[in-house]
Amino acid sequence: MALQDSALAAMAAEIEFLLFDLLEVQKLADRPRFADHSRETFAAVLHTAQEVAGQHFAPHARKSDENEPRFENGRAVVIPEVKEALRHFANAGFSAATANYEDGGMQLPFAVHMGAGALFSATNIATKSYASLTAAAANIIGAFGTPEQRRLFERPMREGRYFGTMVLTEPQAGSSLADLRTAATPAQDGTYRIAGNKLFISGGDHEMGENIVHLVLARLPDAPAGTRGISLFIVPKTLVNEDGTPGERNDVALAGLIHKMGWRGTTSAMLNFGEKGGAVGYLVGEPNRGLVYMFHMMNEARINVGSGAAALGYAAYRHALDYARERRQGRPVEARDAAQPQIPIIEHPDIRRMLLAQKAYAEGAVALCLFAATLIDDKQTAASEAGRREADDLLEILTPIVKSWPSQWSQETISLAMQVHGGYGYTREYPVEQLYRENRLNAIHEGTHGIQGLDLLGRKVVMNDARAFELLCGRIAAAADAAIGTRELAAEGRALAEALARVRTVTAGLAAAMASGKRSLVLANASVYLETLGHIVVGWIWLNQALCAQKLLDAGDPRHAALKGKLHACRYFMRWELPRTASQLDRLEALDDTWAAMPEDWLC
Amino acid sequence: MALQDSALAAMAAEIEFLLFDLLEVQKLADRPRFADHSRETFAAVLHTAQEVAGQHFAPHARKSDENEPRFENGRAVVIPEVKEALRHFANAGFSAATANYEDGGMQLPFAVHMGAGALFSATNIATKSYASLTAAAANIIGAFGTPEQRRLFERPMREGRYFGTMVLTEPQAGSSLADLRTAATPAQDGTYRIAGNKLFISGGDHEMGENIVHLVLARLPDAPAGTRGISLFIVPKTLVNEDGTPGERNDVALAGLIHKMGWRGTTSAMLNFGEKGGAVGYLVGEPNRGLVYMFHMMNEARINVGSGAAALGYAAYRHALDYARERRQGRPVEARDAAQPQIPIIEHPDIRRMLLAQKAYAEGAVALCLFAATLIDDKQTAASEAGRREADDLLEILTPIVKSWPSQWSQETISLAMQVHGGYGYTREYPVEQLYRENRLNAIHEGTHGIQGLDLLGRKVVMNDARAFELLCGRIAAAADAAIGTRELAAEGRALAEALARVRTVTAGLAAAMASGKRSLVLANASVYLETLGHIVVGWIWLNQALCAQKLLDAGDPRHAALKGKLHACRYFMRWELPRTASQLDRLEALDDTWAAMPEDWLC
Repeated sequence: MALQDSALAAMAAEIEFLLFDLLEVQKLADRPRFADHSRETFAAVLHTAQEVAGQHFAPHARKSDENEPRFENGRAVVIPEVKEALRHFANAGFSAATANYEDGGMQLPFAVHMGAGALFSATNIATKSYASLTAAAANIIGAFGTPEQRRLFERPMREGRYFGTMVLTEPQAGSSLADLRTAATPAQDGTYRIAGNKLFISGGDHEMGENIVHLVLARLPDAPAGTRGISLFIVPKTLVNEDGTPGERNDVALAGLIHKMGWRGTTSAMLNFGEKGGAVGYLVGEPNRGLVYMFHMMNEARINVGSGAAALGYAAYRHALDYARERRQGRPVEARDAAQPQIPIIEHPDIRRMLLAQKAYAEGAVALCLFAATLIDDKQTAASEAGRREADDLLEILTPIVKSWPSQWSQETISLAMQVHGGYGYTREYPVEQLYRENRLNAIHEGTHGIQGLDLLGRKVVMNDARAFELLCGRIAAAADAAIGTRELAAEGRALAEALARVRTVTAGLAAAMASGKRSLVLANASVYLETLGHIVVGWIWLNQALCAQKLLDAGDPRHAALKGKLHACRYFMRWELPRTASQLDRLEALDDTWAAMPEDWLC
Repeated sequence: MALQDSALAAMAAEIEFLLFDLLEVQKLADRPRFADHSRETFAAVLHTAQEVAGQHFAPHARKSDENEPRFENGRAVVIPEVKEALRHFANAGFSAATANYEDGGMQLPFAVHMGAGALFSATNIATKSYASLTAAAANIIGAFGTPEQRRLFERPMREGRYFGTMVLTEPQAGSSLADLRTAATPAQDGTYRIAGNKLFISGGDHEMGENIVHLVLARLPDAPAGTRGISLFIVPKTLVNEDGTPGERNDVALAGLIHKMGWRGTTSAMLNFGEKGGAVGYLVGEPNRGLVYMFHMMNEARINVGSGAAALGYAAYRHALDYARERRQGRPVEARDAAQPQIPIIEHPDIRRMLLAQKAYAEGAVALCLFAATLIDDKQTAASEAGRREADDLLEILTPIVKSWPSQWSQETISLAMQVHGGYGYTREYPVEQLYRENRLNAIHEGTHGIQGLDLLGRKVVMNDARAFELLCGRIAAAADAAIGTRELAAEGRALAEALARVRTVTAGLAAAMASGKRSLVLANASVYLETLGHIVVGWIWLNQALCAQKLLDAGDPRHAALKGKLHACRYFMRWELPRTASQLDRLEALDDTWAAMPEDWLC
């Protein structure tokens, strides 16, 4: 049912190609922070992830979907396999993979950690998400908490003993965090009393660890309205004594569970804080800076969403590929003799079309996410300040794309994988339908597609006089130039250069229009812009993969078919995918007002 | 949870616009077969459908999804509400809506019947499908059965007492019906003994009626290999005596149920025929003509799939529209003062974008299907032979598009509806996630997307020296010319004319290439051709709607906003959707061999 061992091994090999051949993360070992590491230790981490994922995550993926957490006597009950899998995950060190040695971590590069994480997501994203959420919460406490908070809360989270959550959403405040109402009242002892109702809290309740550390956004009494009046609090499910032993149960009640289309293994909770007088909370950092802290980690959280989506798409591709090689059905279009045996469906061109598209989307998405992960590493550890700043700029502008492109196109990947399976793909006896249900969440959580579009065009593209945008364009142009100079990839290089020139012109026009009072009109088309630039960026990622593959082929690398496949997927992307952007760019350039100017009552 | 009464009323109004204003089906009452009917009786049928759907289909849509049929002691147990709903459906006459008066029918035009059917599908497609399958089976017996078979089997199906199924698929024969193995052996008494294993039989077992009439494809002992050796048999679940009373249980065993992602309310059965010596079967028509008979009804079955998909998409659009008017979140991009109240999300341009796209896909799909339904009526009852032949030609070439376009684009519609709902849309507390799961089947059953592409480009486009294709192009050109002659729709007319000219040229090139030995290469891109021609056809359908709306506006029709909305959705389609075809046509014209020429081992 879940990803087979051979498919998981293929995925690990793909991640090795991306990390070591394309992104050359082994060079990170030259930096002081990673000095104890090497290509061998990185590969060992991937190997361990492959083992733990295959042995402890894959087997209960379907069971977890079919037995979603139950709400019983105010508690959320999760099947025992999840706890067991997370114990193995923590024991193998993944809970603290990127943390400092002194905090119990492995000081792994973020890119290697994300490569390993993709193997867990591909096998069982619902179980893995408990760990991801915990890591995100621990990172925030690690960055902004007091030494005491780090000792009492971050440390046991890194050890896999405590779990963590991010508590943002309220019924009236989903995408609009400015409208949060949960109140934090100062108490005599320097702590706070938190009261309010939250929902969609992933991992919001369960009994798999010793404690759950909720990171809660709330308002102090004198806080200004809007996003500038939001503070961040640690609100543990169970209070913790000075010495780390458990104290009383805090005033946090599980009000109910939300039932989702997919991702059912992860509890999604409605939590009531302060029904009995106020939940004890500890302020993180300074008052009214909560959203800044939360967004400090938002890039990573969003890249994590994209990476999860990419992994689900990749898993679907592997399932479809295995099925297409095994399933026999029909005969070639020009030899329909029913007396002849049926052929494996991979021999039908339309099946190959769907598989090639899946490969292009899935491997493009995984490569995009791992590249973004290297930017997080560079931002933190590049040798020069210029190097760190460039990584930061690229990361800022790419994050909305890294979040949204895999979310959108993995859904297409999985849909094509289902189509390859025919009627079987639609049944719960085969795994792709679950992937289809799981991945659909990714275009919604951690900021919807629409929110990413506004972030990209309204902020990231124009910030600092388009410095990040120009940097990105320069990188794309360099890859296109390099390809144009080769025999094998000149056509692909020209296609990308042409699309780049066009998007540069159009972007300049949009920026000028925004500066001249047409901000609202321009941003009405922000989602289209997001999709268009996304396709061009992934075209660039594909060209980089193809350049790398050609170099390896020229050097006699034995992975001949796989590398030829990379070249061909790049060719597919340039021929069939990149041209999709042309008509969208035309409409963007025209400052199209089709929906911006439409009276609302015409929708009826 | 299910479609609200107000939304169902809006859908009925939309169907009235399409049937009466756009397609003018009231004129069918001039034909002898429909002479007792009038616009008023047609409207009454729609009104009854709206009532029965709202009262008896909508309420259990979610319950049916959550309580899929259970396999108990060899029986499939379905929740009682389904039987009750189908009783009301039959009592209102819908089981025999299009049948002759002498057969207990209402002699309704197919178009009106399909308009009514869309209301049932929009509320509960799983329950409705038992009725659709029964009607399809009854139509085949009506067309090809003996008077005795019609009396014993068709009649009680029309009365809603018996149910029917279509029994095609076997484990080794899904899309490849040539590989069917189920055997039919002649018995002494002129009947046959059927033995074989079938699966994916929708409605294959339940106890909601007095009997189930299986229409089974099987092979006679001396039958030729392939599709020319398949015969059609009536195999009732319970044998029927001469006088219509029930006899013994036939040798048909329910081997198990298949568990699906959606459409859970409809049993999908594995049936074993002949485990105890052979199920009694009655040959329909002549030996070895089974597939011909089955495909006689295939146009209707495929249009029915398209219509169901269109209805699901339309339902999602109505849910999203209602939600977008009620849900308040955020503020305008240029007035973000958190002290001001939040606005209904329909005021956000990106939400309007998604709703407008949904409207264009959903109303385009419903209009396309109802137009195709009028072709079935014309094929059967148009006054002139030329009229009947033209309808038949158009129906043949449009059927693959009517089947596939709504299946594909309703999924996008529903996905956008989910996106409008944000996180709520992903939960089972809201209805769109179920629609998303239901509709995904439509691109698979009754011939996958890929099969439709081969049918369109490999057969329908080129048949009779492209007579049907030229007829279709002539109709599209006429609409474009009419629009170019108006002030309001000239730009839209020109856009369509341009796309038409392009697809004509490209199609001629593809046909020539197929004729000159490149059939396999050309057909490798058949799915792309299907999608491209589909978009152009729906562009034409939209232009027709807009021309009709403009005429009504000019005449002072009071539905001002709704008609303006039609014009605007047409504008959207021409600006944003039709241009998608340009890059696809480029690749088709180039006889692109990206996947046709790819070695299989590059996929890894």
